[in-house]
Amino acid sequence: QEKYWVKPDSLYKYVQPSAALQFWGTYTSGEKAQFAANGPLEAVQNRVSFMARRARLGFSGKPYKGLSYAVMIQYDNLGKDKLSGVRGATNTGTLGILDAYVTWRFTKNEMGAITVGYFQPQISRECITGDLLVNSFDKSVSQTYIRQHMDGKSYGRATGLNIGGLKNSGSFSFGYNVGIFNNVTTAADPKNFPESAGKYWSPLTVERLTFTFGDPEKKTYSINYDANNYYSKRNGVTFAVFGSQQGRTDIFQNNHVNGFDVLFNYKNLNLDGEWSWLERKAEGHTLRGQTGHIRAGYNIVVSEKYFLEPCFMLTDYSGDSSGSVSGSDRLYDAGVNWYLNKKNCKLSVHYIVQEGAGVNGYTDGVTFQKGNYAGASLVLMI
Amino acid sequence: QEKYWVKPDSLYKYVQPSAALQFWGTYTSGEKAQFAANGPLEAVQNRVSFMARRARLGFSGKPYKGLSYAVMIQYDNLGKDKLSGVRGATNTGTLGILDAYVTWRFTKNEMGAITVGYFQPQISRECITGDLLVNSFDKSVSQTYIRQHMDGKSYGRATGLNIGGLKNSGSFSFGYNVGIFNNVTTAADPKNFPESAGKYWSPLTVERLTFTFGDPEKKTYSINYDANNYYSKRNGVTFAVFGSQQGRTDIFQNNHVNGFDVLFNYKNLNLDGEWSWLERKAEGHTLRGQTGHIRAGYNIVVSEKYFLEPCFMLTDYSGDSSGSVSGSDRLYDAGVNWYLNKKNCKLSVHYIVQEGAGVNGYTDGVTFQKGNYAGASLVLMI
Amino acid sequence: QEKYWVKPDSLYKYVQPSAALQFWGTYTSGEKAQFAANGPLEAVQNRVSFMARRARLGFSGKPYKGLSYAVMIQYDNLGKDKLSGVRGATNTGTLGILDAYVTWRFTKNEMGAITVGYFQPQISRECITGDLLVNSFDKSVSQTYIRQHMDGKSYGRATGLNIGGLKNSGSFSFGYNVGIFNNVTTAADPKNFPESAGKYWSPLTVERLTFTFGDPEKKTYSINYDANNYYSKRNGVTFAVFGSQQGRTDIFQNNHVNGFDVLFNYKNLNLDGEWSWLERKAEGHTLRGQTGHIRAGYNIVVSEKYFLEPCFMLTDYSGDSSGSVSGSDRLYDAGVNWYLNKKNCKLSVHYIVQEGAGVNGYTDGVTFQKGNYAGASLVLMI
Repeated sequence: QEKYWVKPDSLYKYVQPSAALQFWGTYTSGEKAQFAANGPLEAVQNRVSFMARRARLGFSGKPYKGLSYAVMIQYDNLGKDKLSGVRGATNTGTLGILDAYVTWRFTKNEMGAITVGYFQPQISRECITGDLLVNSFDKSVSQTYIRQHMDGKSYGRATGLNIGGLKNSGSFSFGYNVGIFNNVTTAADPKNFPESAGKYWSPLTVERLTFTFGDPEKKTYSINYDANNYYSKRNGVTFAVFGSQQGRTDIFQNNHVNGFDVLFNYKNLNLDGEWSWLERKAEGHTLRGQTGHIRAGYNIVVSEKYFLEPCFMLTDYSGDSSGSVSGSDRLYDAGVNWYLNKKNCKLSVHYIVQEGAGVNGYTDGVTFQKGNYAGASLVLMI
Repeated sequence: QEKYWVKPDSLYKYVQPSAALQFWGTYTSGEKAQFAANGPLEAVQNRVSFMARRARLGFSGKPYKGLSYAVMIQYDNLGKDKLSGVRGATNTGTLGILDAYVTWRFTKNEMGAITVGYFQPQISRECITGDLLVNSFDKSVSQTYIRQHMDGKSYGRATGLNIGGLKNSGSFSFGYNVGIFNNVTTAADPKNFPESAGKYWSPLTVERLTFTFGDPEKKTYSINYDANNYYSKRNGVTFAVFGSQQGRTDIFQNNHVNGFDVLFNYKNLNLDGEWSWLERKAEGHTLRGQTGHIRAGYNIVVSEKYFLEPCFMLTDYSGDSSGSVSGSDRLYDAGVNWYLNKKNCKLSVHYIVQEGAGVNGYTDGVTFQKGNYAGASLVLMI
Repeated sequence: QEKYWVKPDSLYKYVQPSAALQFWGTYTSGEKAQFAANGPLEAVQNRVSFMARRARLGFSGKPYKGLSYAVMIQYDNLGKDKLSGVRGATNTGTLGILDAYVTWRFTKNEMGAITVGYFQPQISRECITGDLLVNSFDKSVSQTYIRQHMDGKSYGRATGLNIGGLKNSGSFSFGYNVGIFNNVTTAADPKNFPESAGKYWSPLTVERLTFTFGDPEKKTYSINYDANNYYSKRNGVTFAVFGSQQGRTDIFQNNHVNGFDVLFNYKNLNLDGEWSWLERKAEGHTLRGQTGHIRAGYNIVVSEKYFLEPCFMLTDYSGDSSGSVSGSDRLYDAGVNWYLNKKNCKLSVHYIVQEGAGVNGYTDGVTFQKGNYAGASLVLMI
């Protein structure tokens, strides 16, 4: 073969299909909605709602040495009743792109890799952890506030370029990521200019640094983070600081996210939390909000047969981070996870309490107010 | 390996891609439509329309012992001319989710299996038989009336949970399915509450029982039914009764489907039929409709080389089963199927005559009235 | 096995997944848009836009002897800023069907093959060459004018039937394609009759003939054309003539495309070009436009390690080919391609200059006018 053609990786897998389903059955009580124009919030009847809370299928592979790619399609929230207590949109049966990126490791070690495509900017841990992998019933809603604030999309993905790496040495590890992205949600007139920065343009830059003491959180670099439960095999703690910055656009003078997160695993205990400060300067005013969560799980093996994890999470948002998000939003989640084959096959039963005020994911004071719900979940990842 | 992790099935296939195409060429005559606002029904010019009548791709697999899953995407009706005689929607090139479910057989035999996800409630045989597998040119339109009446969706799928099983013993077999589902199409204001039951909520329950004499219709339990042609290998008859029930929602007091179906195979003869009664109580009135079909095919092997099946079907709807469906709708289908590799590769030529009145899939009396058509079909399943 | 079942091909591959990504980073200057109702064209701020310019995933296979199929899904333009200089639509994250067809070679040689499904009618070479394969930065915009004129869809695909073949003998080769298709974009009232020919119907017919001197352009028949760069291995020239015809519909009396194309490869030189005349008779008037491109690349191997190709392209449209397209539109593209693994892994850097007037893809004189842009591209095909 001519020398100028790059060799395909001898251990490559060109295309490997994958699929994942997070199926929920929920029972909601206390949900309210506005049914009559200009009418009051009325109680809706308590209800069961089954849904494919998250459903994905995709391809990934490693066609050349050091080069990997992933494409993931989502059809989340299929079947969800809009008046169940579960956050997020409904789905009439459509599919959307979740991820599409290529990562090229350009160093021999894990210190340097460039990723291009449509993917999650490397901001808070909750934002970049696999959606089906957390030990709470759902991901913390703080990630929605961070994503919406950072790039205006609830899935948080943006097109761009990220450089990152990882250095594990003994009982200390260090990781970094810096990225530049499009934010195509800042046009003053989003109807006529959907998917555009608008008349003015500024790049969105995002950074994240991690410091680990004890066992590393991951051995090879990637832009996705695994389950926060290491099944009692990790004794280590990882601290991270992160931030995003964007300058003038049609709708703000500048826009920032700043925060930190912690993941602590010791024997059977899994503890993680994070806090973010959201800031936006627009029309002379500075808008500020803050959001985060704290979550604890404890692994218990019963009769050497059942790997269970009781778990508790508290999430919180407060402030006035943009014209469309203000007030307070708090969720309490308590439940038990049963890992049948680690993260790949999992059953859970949780109860979620929600409270708040203002205009946010919990309520807008006029048309909706979320209820509490009990939920059972099956996660299957292939 | 630790005892608490479930073992992947040693004979598993994690992810197996599949694809299917039902390509049609049709020639329609006698179609009518309203072209001017408040104008009369005018004849449209006779026309050829090519279309991907049904087109699917998906993944399925069996990751653990007794556990299987399927995900299927559809892009049906691609290319279809809205003014061809063929029923159903048009498609500008979009994709949608058709099926997404997991079935776990929890007994050692076929007697007990639970299915969760987004799938077809187990109602009439025509509703749960694979779309590309029937021996008429298209599936009976009665299935559309049943599905729309039951859960308000033309594809009929709903999210929920089904328990079912199968017992084959000698020349008698018995099968059952019971399920509970969301119906997210009953909000009084579907514009503001799409994908919601509305203010009031009731579960949708669906049941089906089958009784077989002679050769069984299937050997292993599944929620999908195969071709009604067994290529002259089955001598048996299967009777089924089925029903669905739902209580109070925003748009009805209660809603029912009741019916039966029969599949008879003896030597070269394939005979099937079904009848359903649709009932809805709304605003003090009881609305009633009924629908079904009868279909006969006869297998002929010509020169030991061509496996042909002349086939005839009659389908019928009559009544006033809801505010949006009333009157009568009848189709006659006559044609020949040529099975090249059983159901997996099939060519067909059929002629379809349509007639009716009222407001239904045939006509609404004002904006459209379907014509008759001749059609050629290629089915390819991978 | 019974004789009447067709045997699956012993060398078959039932389903083979594939994926492709063309990732762009662009820097646009001089773009203009109308921001205020009835306002003037205003300059937009220069900007970087990252995008998945073309992103595909699909299945293909060869289930029986002589029978192959392909299904391809696209999620093109993901992340693209509407106000970047790049042509085409934006994408909020949705998926669409690009191709879905079956080809059956019914002769023992390559002389006869029938294709049915949803695919590109065999018109100009630029229209039928793989989108990620050309040596200019993007495909020539002439293809958009041809496709829109021919069947009203920017992707150009239509449902129908094509018969074609190929005969290579010594230093002369001949190929042909003739097809009949639906055009479902000709209804007078496309809002109420989307995906319909409208009240009147005429078939769309499309033909293409190729004559090759020297090395053949392809060895086996297919409806897709490969890269116009043969990596200095081909010495040959291929001429083609093509045309499309359609009679009376709601929106025209008749509609034609006529043109020719040339592909010339000799040692390191790659030269191709084409010209098309677009004609439409509507309401007594005859509308005429013409469009085409010329493109040259020269392969250079540097240090026996880098396979580079400097490349230049000029594309042009002028005329008044329909009510919605008129004036002039010209693009100049100059750049360098670095082929890492032939067409499968490629990096490019190009600069594109755009100019024009009237109402077309460059400007409509009122709401937008495209800028110039520098672009870097990564193509990865699996």
